[in-house]
Amino acid sequence: MNMLGIFDSGLGGLTVVRALEQKFPDIGYVYYGDTARLPYGTKTPQTIGRYTVAALEYLRRHGAATPVIACHTASSTLAAHPDIREQALAAAGSEMLFDVVTPAVEAARASTREGRIGILGTTATVRSGIYETLLHDAEVTQVPASVLVGLAEEGWTDTRHAGPILEDLLLPFQRARVDTVVLACTHFPLLAEAIRDILGPEVQLIDPGEALADALLQEEIRPEAGSRRYFATDVPNDFSERAGRFLGRNIEVEQA
Amino acid sequence: MNMLGIFDSGLGGLTVVRALEQKFPDIGYVYYGDTARLPYGTKTPQTIGRYTVAALEYLRRHGAATPVIACHTASSTLAAHPDIREQALAAAGSEMLFDVVTPAVEAARASTREGRIGILGTTATVRSGIYETLLHDAEVTQVPASVLVGLAEEGWTDTRHAGPILEDLLLPFQRARVDTVVLACTHFPLLAEAIRDILGPEVQLIDPGEALADALLQEEIRPEAGSRRYFATDVPNDFSERAGRFLGRNIEVEQA
Repeated sequence: MNMLGIFDSGLGGLTVVRALEQKFPDIGYVYYGDTARLPYGTKTPQTIGRYTVAALEYLRRHGAATPVIACHTASSTLAAHPDIREQALAAAGSEMLFDVVTPAVEAARASTREGRIGILGTTATVRSGIYETLLHDAEVTQVPASVLVGLAEEGWTDTRHAGPILEDLLLPFQRARVDTVVLACTHFPLLAEAIRDILGPEVQLIDPGEALADALLQEEIRPEAGSRRYFATDVPNDFSERAGRFLGRNIEVEQA
Repeated sequence: MNMLGIFDSGLGGLTVVRALEQKFPDIGYVYYGDTARLPYGTKTPQTIGRYTVAALEYLRRHGAATPVIACHTASSTLAAHPDIREQALAAAGSEMLFDVVTPAVEAARASTREGRIGILGTTATVRSGIYETLLHDAEVTQVPASVLVGLAEEGWTDTRHAGPILEDLLLPFQRARVDTVVLACTHFPLLAEAIRDILGPEVQLIDPGEALADALLQEEIRPEAGSRRYFATDVPNDFSERAGRFLGRNIEVEQA
């Protein structure tokens, strides 16, 4: 029994789900999006920890054996606060807990040629300092980019609309001549094309969802085939349309 | 005793506070920002109603006699759902309840020459249909613009960065040749200059905070002079800086 329980603060985690489905086409899972309380990126570690514990308990009650934290902010918070991580493990009733930060760090380390890595994340992820800690042997340039979350949520991700903001945001990466950039928020893979337009093809972009799928393979976790259920703490009318932006198809979401 | 209790989903309501302070320089009030659960713009009426009731109870316990709902989404929800409004009145222990929609509607009606009014709001405000209902005698063009909330929160409100998005967003207003636009979200007055750059000076922009201050005067409510306290359900480190964007000065915020 290895059914995955995937937790995110909202719908962004569906970019992680999409990456998992590409690697494991038959994968079954339970998804929990805390849409009533998102975004986490501007909240305190204590609040984020409380919400994460509640989410993992919920996923466990709905049959998930292996918890996956798809939310970068929650992943960073847990990595930076061992006490909160312990509470989360207890809530999940699991000895393993996958997050999106650890695999992204491994992928960045494998990708960089010059040891200069850029981190594009929310304010909370950047503040947690987790990437600098885990990549202490590299030259890390961090850019807080919470504004991109709204652009991705609302579908303004093309170069014409997101371009002027991205041009300014990405300047520190260009100045530091990074060769690898971690898209350290679930929403940011949606902006990959516009980011590539500015940084050029020689800069590698790390999609943590893809890195997570590789990490599961490496741990010899074969997610079992099965049904897929989607829960959210608040289900607005346009959920299906919004989910489509992240997952690439519409889904039916149940009220958690 | 007329101390105002001002409720918003976050910090945006401070643009309303700023307008009130300009009209009543000595005004005392209690402010409550539900930063742990924002944004409301994508949530359901039931969830928004529950949060509003909790906020008004809190403000009442902290000495507020006259409740002011500075949040557009909550104002629209209450105006569209009499049962939720009744619960809110009971929670506030008040017979009066000011919101930002009613005064904005009055101001728009007074401003329009041709009867063509634009509403720029969050998805939830637009969906509530409240402006179309209250302005049924005008030709109303609505534009959902939740993306602007993030731009304002993060300070990307100048023409260079917000311009390309605003150009597309405001097209329906230009096509409909509106002569008045309601900035129907607390955050949008911060974008007034960039909006004016695109729509031109002949289009009147209604700032609901200013309209609310006028409404209080008309109701002969003279908010009493006194202390000012700011509560929030989650108080991130950068609260002071963020508050500064909306209020024009830094403040000390207490955990609610």
